[in-house]
Amino acid sequence: MSTLWDKQLPLDAAIHRFTVGDDPLVDQALVPHDCVASAAHARTLHAAGLLSEPDCRALLGALRDARGDAFSGRFAIDATQEDCHTALEQWLTAQVGEAGKRIHLGRSRNDQVLVAQRLMLRASLLRLTQGVQTLALALDGFATAHQDLPLPGYTHLRRAMPSSFGQWAGAYAQGLTEELQAAEGVFQRLDRCPLGAGPGFGVPLPLDRALTAKLLGFSRVQVNPIDCISSRGRDAVAVLDWLCSVAGQLEKLHWDLALYSTQEFGFVRLPIAFTTGSSAMPQKRNPDVVELARARCRQLRALRDQVLAIASGLPSSYHRDLQLTKKPLIEALEIGVLLLEVSATLIARLEPVPERAAEACTPELWATDAAYQRAAAGMPSSGMPFRDAYQQVAAEINAGTFKKPALASDQVALGAPGRLELAATRAELDALGHGWRDHGSRIATLETEIFEMRTTK
Amino acid sequence: MSTLWDKQLPLDAAIHRFTVGDDPLVDQALVPHDCVASAAHARTLHAAGLLSEPDCRALLGALRDARGDAFSGRFAIDATQEDCHTALEQWLTAQVGEAGKRIHLGRSRNDQVLVAQRLMLRASLLRLTQGVQTLALALDGFATAHQDLPLPGYTHLRRAMPSSFGQWAGAYAQGLTEELQAAEGVFQRLDRCPLGAGPGFGVPLPLDRALTAKLLGFSRVQVNPIDCISSRGRDAVAVLDWLCSVAGQLEKLHWDLALYSTQEFGFVRLPIAFTTGSSAMPQKRNPDVVELARARCRQLRALRDQVLAIASGLPSSYHRDLQLTKKPLIEALEIGVLLLEVSATLIARLEPVPERAAEACTPELWATDAAYQRAAAGMPSSGMPFRDAYQQVAAEINAGTFKKPALASDQVALGAPGRLELAATRAELDALGHGWRDHGSRIATLETEIFEMRTTK
Amino acid sequence: MSTLWDKQLPLDAAIHRFTVGDDPLVDQALVPHDCVASAAHARTLHAAGLLSEPDCRALLGALRDARGDAFSGRFAIDATQEDCHTALEQWLTAQVGEAGKRIHLGRSRNDQVLVAQRLMLRASLLRLTQGVQTLALALDGFATAHQDLPLPGYTHLRRAMPSSFGQWAGAYAQGLTEELQAAEGVFQRLDRCPLGAGPGFGVPLPLDRALTAKLLGFSRVQVNPIDCISSRGRDAVAVLDWLCSVAGQLEKLHWDLALYSTQEFGFVRLPIAFTTGSSAMPQKRNPDVVELARARCRQLRALRDQVLAIASGLPSSYHRDLQLTKKPLIEALEIGVLLLEVSATLIARLEPVPERAAEACTPELWATDAAYQRAAAGMPSSGMPFRDAYQQVAAEINAGTFKKPALASDQVALGAPGRLELAATRAELDALGHGWRDHGSRIATLETEIFEMRTTK
Amino acid sequence: MSTLWDKQLPLDAAIHRFTVGDDPLVDQALVPHDCVASAAHARTLHAAGLLSEPDCRALLGALRDARGDAFSGRFAIDATQEDCHTALEQWLTAQVGEAGKRIHLGRSRNDQVLVAQRLMLRASLLRLTQGVQTLALALDGFATAHQDLPLPGYTHLRRAMPSSFGQWAGAYAQGLTEELQAAEGVFQRLDRCPLGAGPGFGVPLPLDRALTAKLLGFSRVQVNPIDCISSRGRDAVAVLDWLCSVAGQLEKLHWDLALYSTQEFGFVRLPIAFTTGSSAMPQKRNPDVVELARARCRQLRALRDQVLAIASGLPSSYHRDLQLTKKPLIEALEIGVLLLEVSATLIARLEPVPERAAEACTPELWATDAAYQRAAAGMPSSGMPFRDAYQQVAAEINAGTFKKPALASDQVALGAPGRLELAATRAELDALGHGWRDHGSRIATLETEIFEMRTTK
Repeated sequence: MSTLWDKQLPLDAAIHRFTVGDDPLVDQALVPHDCVASAAHARTLHAAGLLSEPDCRALLGALRDARGDAFSGRFAIDATQEDCHTALEQWLTAQVGEAGKRIHLGRSRNDQVLVAQRLMLRASLLRLTQGVQTLALALDGFATAHQDLPLPGYTHLRRAMPSSFGQWAGAYAQGLTEELQAAEGVFQRLDRCPLGAGPGFGVPLPLDRALTAKLLGFSRVQVNPIDCISSRGRDAVAVLDWLCSVAGQLEKLHWDLALYSTQEFGFVRLPIAFTTGSSAMPQKRNPDVVELARARCRQLRALRDQVLAIASGLPSSYHRDLQLTKKPLIEALEIGVLLLEVSATLIARLEPVPERAAEACTPELWATDAAYQRAAAGMPSSGMPFRDAYQQVAAEINAGTFKKPALASDQVALGAPGRLELAATRAELDALGHGWRDHGSRIATLETEIFEMRTTK
Repeated sequence: MSTLWDKQLPLDAAIHRFTVGDDPLVDQALVPHDCVASAAHARTLHAAGLLSEPDCRALLGALRDARGDAFSGRFAIDATQEDCHTALEQWLTAQVGEAGKRIHLGRSRNDQVLVAQRLMLRASLLRLTQGVQTLALALDGFATAHQDLPLPGYTHLRRAMPSSFGQWAGAYAQGLTEELQAAEGVFQRLDRCPLGAGPGFGVPLPLDRALTAKLLGFSRVQVNPIDCISSRGRDAVAVLDWLCSVAGQLEKLHWDLALYSTQEFGFVRLPIAFTTGSSAMPQKRNPDVVELARARCRQLRALRDQVLAIASGLPSSYHRDLQLTKKPLIEALEIGVLLLEVSATLIARLEPVPERAAEACTPELWATDAAYQRAAAGMPSSGMPFRDAYQQVAAEINAGTFKKPALASDQVALGAPGRLELAATRAELDALGHGWRDHGSRIATLETEIFEMRTTK
Repeated sequence: MSTLWDKQLPLDAAIHRFTVGDDPLVDQALVPHDCVASAAHARTLHAAGLLSEPDCRALLGALRDARGDAFSGRFAIDATQEDCHTALEQWLTAQVGEAGKRIHLGRSRNDQVLVAQRLMLRASLLRLTQGVQTLALALDGFATAHQDLPLPGYTHLRRAMPSSFGQWAGAYAQGLTEELQAAEGVFQRLDRCPLGAGPGFGVPLPLDRALTAKLLGFSRVQVNPIDCISSRGRDAVAVLDWLCSVAGQLEKLHWDLALYSTQEFGFVRLPIAFTTGSSAMPQKRNPDVVELARARCRQLRALRDQVLAIASGLPSSYHRDLQLTKKPLIEALEIGVLLLEVSATLIARLEPVPERAAEACTPELWATDAAYQRAAAGMPSSGMPFRDAYQQVAAEINAGTFKKPALASDQVALGAPGRLELAATRAELDALGHGWRDHGSRIATLETEIFEMRTTK
Repeated sequence: MSTLWDKQLPLDAAIHRFTVGDDPLVDQALVPHDCVASAAHARTLHAAGLLSEPDCRALLGALRDARGDAFSGRFAIDATQEDCHTALEQWLTAQVGEAGKRIHLGRSRNDQVLVAQRLMLRASLLRLTQGVQTLALALDGFATAHQDLPLPGYTHLRRAMPSSFGQWAGAYAQGLTEELQAAEGVFQRLDRCPLGAGPGFGVPLPLDRALTAKLLGFSRVQVNPIDCISSRGRDAVAVLDWLCSVAGQLEKLHWDLALYSTQEFGFVRLPIAFTTGSSAMPQKRNPDVVELARARCRQLRALRDQVLAIASGLPSSYHRDLQLTKKPLIEALEIGVLLLEVSATLIARLEPVPERAAEACTPELWATDAAYQRAAAGMPSSGMPFRDAYQQVAAEINAGTFKKPALASDQVALGAPGRLELAATRAELDALGHGWRDHGSRIATLETEIFEMRTTK
């Protein structure tokens, strides 16, 4: 059996192995999306009078089946078939005969992989935003539950000012809410239909690209075909940049947990199911999950860099180099989903250790408060300049005479431990979650209906 | 003279040099923004009754002067002053006495640098979007002027299908339009006021953070202070991610130009002012500008990576590590502006060499067209399957009998050389440009008015 | 079934999946090395009187079998077993009973994986140096065969000076020879035995680490156990740094080939087996192999960066993060071997196209030679300064009156096309190859003999 | 005034600024090396009869002066001169007239910058190895002084086994000794003379490259000129790879210090001169130096990546892109020197806090020892398998009945706290230091003598 482009030329098996690489494995993730995109292409061909209705119906039915097989892991890509696109065309030809040989009219593998990738990115972004929302809600929940438990606030890993478990977890809830908003911009980048670019210079056939876009649920056509092909790395990196921004927050979260769960800090207790033992040391419980989660964040950055490194450094249009972006891209998306799930599960079960945290809230945390109180006293008419109050308190601390102020301030600015506004974050998360779920249902419906051709033309 | 936090402790000069690093130089870029943010802070202190009106007015006047000095390069940061924030506080104290010692009440250097950086990022984004728009318009102009000049389309650096100068330049115009849209999402990320985070756990004073945000032209308060401090790398990387996406397109553009201007391709002529000679070889004209522009794109990625590497790998809250993000960040923003300007200038003067391009449009570029015509003939009722037409044409090419079709297709899909829609891109660019200029004027007005306190309170 | 460290604690399957990751797959590459290292450990335990002779013999036999199974792909690592070390200990216990439960005395999984990785790195380095030597010899062979065929020398991708196919290919042969020398330094880094570090602070048992080192063919003991554990990323990155230096040369080689095989340059013809067709364009032969090879070089750099990113950013000693370095490390080593093989095969079949190359050797390539001849004439007593000769020739070129000198110089410096010294490179390559093969045989012998305990003690 | 290659062509100032970039500043670091290399070139020209003795003597004298000026910061590079090579040639012409116009015969700026860079790399490597040795000796000294002070050994940031301050500091001393050995391989890479490559294809003049190499103290000629030019990134990255390996250890060291000096761990006290205060919080002493040192390590990696990114992704031979590698390279080398110095100073003044460390050595650190003692008892004839002893101890720990063994083991393996072998490391460091200093003196002598031409030829 041979690849589609084979014209009876000798082809060394080693070379084949080198060019095919891990594609038969990697491409599994693209198959369902290729089926959807192929259905849109078939219907556009039919609408242009370039595919008969029976052929079109036959192809749509077969594509729906192939998609089903792909979901259940039964769609096989043979090493000899090079990639999922060749495999799908051959499978269609086997299923529906001549019609299968008509499907590739007016498209090329380059735009085929590009549109399949974009559909995959869109689907992944929907899953990832769901993961972010779930985690953010868990953090907001933790913050709300332990809102007033004191915790030292650290800067430079040194005790700095009074904080709370609520403020700590609320920070991540808020930061992830920002990510959920930012994801909308990424979604818009993806919301362009590249199918119809052909090999990268357009198609000399009267195909209605607006129809293709509509069938696939894209808001607009990505008109210029050179730009379509050149954007293959760009769209992937846009998603990964966003995912890495999320991961940047998760890295801090898990670093905090790794630290706060040490014997020395002792502010939180990791659920036992999230720890493992040692092969040599009978007493150990190790925080493997938070360490691995932390490392996954660095790995996500490295995978993003890998995609970008392979996709860049080249003139415009298609180069085979791009094939190698698929593996790190898909790996990164899968890691992202898993990482968010594990993190949310962990936060849901995390236990604060209030007594250890309270004990660490030593008086000097209120040194700034003391300086502020002295500077504020008698204002605006009179009062000690802050810089003098600061020096005064510093001198007391050096002399060992500093005392925590009798009353800690309750006149606090927005965001301080006493004014966290956790409910506002929760409301925002709910609203954002609704928006993302709406995107999701709309697309799920479209990707089912695409196989059903209701009217004849 | 000493740093603000000096409490008469011995401090080795080498250590000072190590901790200060290049900050006195680097921080010049932050001074104007620190002045604006300090003005907002003074007014907020005043509104809270924590700064008298005369002190506030004195500070505002001095800050306006400092900003003027900074713009004209006359604001000096001494190596002993560590950074611009210390320098500004000392300068204010020298100018307005006691009032200067009152300005730091209720804020910390951590949120001071953070808000100054965010204002700088916002200003830089406005300049960069302007640069992108100018370049995109130049490309759209080039595309329109040379719309129908044929050019071979390449895939794998091999001649593939008929293309045109219009399609080539139009691809970049379209891609950059996408970037201009995507910049809006980045702007929204930046549109949060972090000032008021204090050292990172909020301020025990009744400061009105909504007022601060409004004065600085931010749509919302970034409430949670831990999130504020932790977002210092995140906001910078968001801008750089976007800039690197732009740079990814510029890299392709300059690679194309480097290649198309070789003696071997010869499709474009670089303006002589954009080339340089050789120290040893009398005949050479080298395309240094496009090579350096191409390299700047790789450098931008590396600088983004540097910012991210330094900002990540840490628990939450402030760590001194972050100081080192300033230099690569500012360097990247400046390179971005320059790169866009040079690119736009180059495109405006670029000359196609139509005869060399036409000569390279050899008949086999129409092989796909020929296969399509055979597959389309007689459709939808009958017609040769595409895969058979492909094999037929392939056989003719191998046999040396293939001829370019008598009539090349004019039934083309959207985006093909005959249907570029360049005017639509131009219209979109104009609209986006208006939006960005509106952002710009609004902010410029606010940043002037902030020093004028009209009403007493 | 359960992992070794399981103490009847509940462990959620998802967490298990998250912590185990791809290890059961990835670790296949480590099994043979773990067997060898475990044999050395058993013999060291026996020598210390901590393992009876029968137990030791039983373990050695079983380990030899396990290694055989691993080589033939029959050693199974179950997902429940977490990693190959757990799998091997359980397998040993199943094979030889109580003796299996004795093998882990005095070692930990941390130093077990470290020593297995170091043995793997050592073995990989031997394979990679062989690949480099083969490729370098192919290049030297190509250079020798086409030594005098002219080729334009390019700088800035513009024709610069006369060169030759011999000089072009000889450059890579020489550069790779440098890599082969540099590999010796990497080998020395690896030539330290970490086994005996225990969990990272040494072993409170009288184990003879010098014996372990000798059995495993290491020149010295890596004494300090904290350093051992901390070096886990360092040794991997040392190999990958070297591999990336090699890849930097391969990237240039394949970029040259991608360019020189275009229709526009046309200096070489890629063997048809190294090209593929297009799914849409019947006329295309694409240089997929050189494009993928070029991309693999960027990927190797990214995989190196991934290993380094995961291994760094941490305090000293072991952290679970390190687990994730295994996958990209092993992937990079395998890609390196394949890439070198494919490149050598390609060079062995590469065909120059002398007529196209000669045609491109236009007269201005000799402009520098002309300037030199004018500057050299009459020297040292008199003669035109070079800078004046340069201006004179430049003026002639601008005026269109420049002529290639009647006689091109044959008075050339070492390295110029007339003095390539290819035989010297070949001799050096042969000598280096011998050295590496000697390393290889010595180690192969040791790794067989380690399972045979001849004398009782 | 104009650049050397100016042939009266219009050149827009902006373009000039873009192409020149920061070179006038950056190139200061190269000037002394360019002077040395230019002297070697002049003497080689003279030896070939291409430069008269008086001209040669005049040039050598002027070059010696220029080098002196460069060392004292008085050699000016004007922005109009583009780079130090143009500046030097113009300066020579101004000093010694016609002779200055003769110096560029037989070389090009490409090999000029390459040889200057290699001399700079060689000099930097000598400084860096000195810095590594000094730091390693400080660590070995600290380890020796506090050899027996107990410290908990951590894995996964959890208390694991008994360790000591000596073992902790000794680990770094040993690891840096490895780096000092590995530096020799890097030195050998640099020990090739590229001068004579011309623009990259050799020089059509009878120059004696072996003489040039000898004058410059290189062991061999880097024969093939294409390889010379292509190695410009390779040699820089080789040095930076090594420096990053060193930095990988320093990162761990400073992370350890950041952690061990927290209020929670409290095992070391940072000298007050290495800490700074806070602008807002009167009580704070922050470990800025260790944080910045830690961040510098990440920055070094990023700068290395920048050099590599710019130097790679290109076909063979010279491209202007390479210019941009100079700035990050020089920045990295300077950071490296400073970082090593600061680290050594810090270690020399570091104070352990023995009572806090001893307090943290809780009984369960001896759980492994206990299991080993049970498994070793009665061996080899009988004894409990380790895996059973492990389970037994684990059960006691879970039941709260575990007790630290009466006698901790003194039968320890090499590397355990009782057998650190610090003196051996010190002896090795001394020997390596001697070797590096020998390299240094030899080169210093050569670089002075090169300006003295004793015999006429």
